[in-house]
Amino acid sequence: MSQFWSDIVHQLTPYVPGEQPKMSKLIKLNTNECPYGPSPRALAAIREAVSDDLRLYPDPQADALKQAVANYFQLAPENVFVGNGSDEILAHTFHGLLKHDAPVLFPDISYSFYPVYCRLYDIEAAPVALRDDFAIAVEDYARPNGGVILPNPNAPTGRLLSLSAIEQLLQANPKSVVVVDEAYIDFGGESAAALVPRYPNLLVVQTLSKSRALAGLRVGFALGDPALIEALVRVKDSFNSYPLDRPAIQGAVAAIEDHDYFGDLCARVIATRERLTTGLERLGFSVIPSQANFVFTTHPKHQAADIAARLREDSIIVRHFRQPRIENYLRITVGTDEEIKQLLESLQRIVGA
Amino acid sequence: MSQFWSDIVHQLTPYVPGEQPKMSKLIKLNTNECPYGPSPRALAAIREAVSDDLRLYPDPQADALKQAVANYFQLAPENVFVGNGSDEILAHTFHGLLKHDAPVLFPDISYSFYPVYCRLYDIEAAPVALRDDFAIAVEDYARPNGGVILPNPNAPTGRLLSLSAIEQLLQANPKSVVVVDEAYIDFGGESAAALVPRYPNLLVVQTLSKSRALAGLRVGFALGDPALIEALVRVKDSFNSYPLDRPAIQGAVAAIEDHDYFGDLCARVIATRERLTTGLERLGFSVIPSQANFVFTTHPKHQAADIAARLREDSIIVRHFRQPRIENYLRITVGTDEEIKQLLESLQRIVGA
Repeated sequence: MSQFWSDIVHQLTPYVPGEQPKMSKLIKLNTNECPYGPSPRALAAIREAVSDDLRLYPDPQADALKQAVANYFQLAPENVFVGNGSDEILAHTFHGLLKHDAPVLFPDISYSFYPVYCRLYDIEAAPVALRDDFAIAVEDYARPNGGVILPNPNAPTGRLLSLSAIEQLLQANPKSVVVVDEAYIDFGGESAAALVPRYPNLLVVQTLSKSRALAGLRVGFALGDPALIEALVRVKDSFNSYPLDRPAIQGAVAAIEDHDYFGDLCARVIATRERLTTGLERLGFSVIPSQANFVFTTHPKHQAADIAARLREDSIIVRHFRQPRIENYLRITVGTDEEIKQLLESLQRIVGA
Repeated sequence: MSQFWSDIVHQLTPYVPGEQPKMSKLIKLNTNECPYGPSPRALAAIREAVSDDLRLYPDPQADALKQAVANYFQLAPENVFVGNGSDEILAHTFHGLLKHDAPVLFPDISYSFYPVYCRLYDIEAAPVALRDDFAIAVEDYARPNGGVILPNPNAPTGRLLSLSAIEQLLQANPKSVVVVDEAYIDFGGESAAALVPRYPNLLVVQTLSKSRALAGLRVGFALGDPALIEALVRVKDSFNSYPLDRPAIQGAVAAIEDHDYFGDLCARVIATRERLTTGLERLGFSVIPSQANFVFTTHPKHQAADIAARLREDSIIVRHFRQPRIENYLRITVGTDEEIKQLLESLQRIVGA
């Protein structure tokens, strides 16, 4: 508290990201990073950007990256916005497209950054309760709103909405922007990007932090009608002209163009997720059906917080949210097969068999 | 214009950065980049960060970088905030520390991003006219305000305020945050960083884009009392947990620790600036005394816009601002000696001798 703070600073409850421990030798299954490194072509492209040219500003609009993203989704560059991770894009989206008189709707159990953005930009938030099985029922979003945002698949549950459910949501809210936050879509879902040409109220947000294995490079993008993209550009150009550095732009282009590596990587994560799910169920856990690179799971006889603490003694870190309705669940990132094997062995000791 | 835009988007007049042309073979003297590459130690550190570890998120608080900056200025890490270029830090500063009931004061001829931030965050702006010689008179800032911000040296004039003038400003405004934007301080000025322990209302902002030759890496930092830093952290953690990517953090640490390279580089730019100034004066230009890596200059017989257009025909780009009081001035970045030689030859043909 300080006399120098703006009023808004006093009201903020900042987002708390998952722990990023500085020790190595951990099995880190708490922040949904990819267990494999990025495309070797991306690494080569980043290295190539490390030169005396770093003395020069990057392209402020990152046109090469917009073009690569547009090509990938068969859209136009005018449909693409890029930013310093999808979190920055979400921030600009709340500020530029979701701040209206009516409240923003999002699931009550979801990405916990959404209510933080609402406080930052003084936007009324109206959380919508998930159904008892943690499903999003799109008909629950048919009420007056200034925008709708939801992750698909949802986090931390991993549950996927079908594209027809997304369309239903878009049709029910023609006067609001519907933001589909697809951080985890590549692990089993179908992107709403294909709907962009038909729905001027749709904004799709993706990140290179998960399926492109580039969390350390900070790149995300949004896809939408040019009018929505223009709002984001206007906010961005009033905030920071050059949000993406030269290595990030070059690396992201190469990552998006390396289709084979990307396909293999997603397939490996999906295969391990299925082994993890089966292994957990054998130990008596219930697992919410996941189409993400994590699973959300609970055990009938053991407290989630206790299990997380015991795993930590074995140098395995998973995510536990102290939040109503989910305090007895753990979110476990899909690691390598070897990491998952060690996790399951550790869990066997903890919960018995 | 779109029904989906937030009200604020309609009011924005985004900042327009200097042109970043995609052709090479240009003499680019328009955006105050350093004419020499960054520290080889910084390049090596960035390369080292290009590994499979890019799959992992960076340290959200970039503690290693805070520590390096703190060491450099003999301050504590609690006095340091880091961000994705100083523009991002300035944005958070307007939002978190300068948004109050009274207007923010800044020079009428100054960094043109300041009024843009005011519109983005709905802050009243009260530009204070520079004196006729483009000097900032600190006594002009002794009036009710919600904050004061000025670049030192000022841009685009290059004029430096002494540390005692800065202290006068701090003492005259004990209830406001005074932001000293030191993008160009290393080319001849004395940083106000030394005043941080004595003035709880002082925030110093610096960038690695100029004297560290890393415009393409996007790193800046702020120095101030822990309460001011906390406001920035609260805003940042409500906006984007991970604004700095792994290569940027590692490269910035190495750049700040390479004292010798930094000292040599600044000395070379200063020496060339003096040659540029002398050369311009020989051609009949008036040059405002500059302590920055650019000069601000006017010719009594030739229109600045015409000179800029003629230079462009010779593939030399300088910055011209179509703005009252300065429309007959050019801002010319200090390039290499060879670039400045070519500039002066071209100017000789344009203005005669």
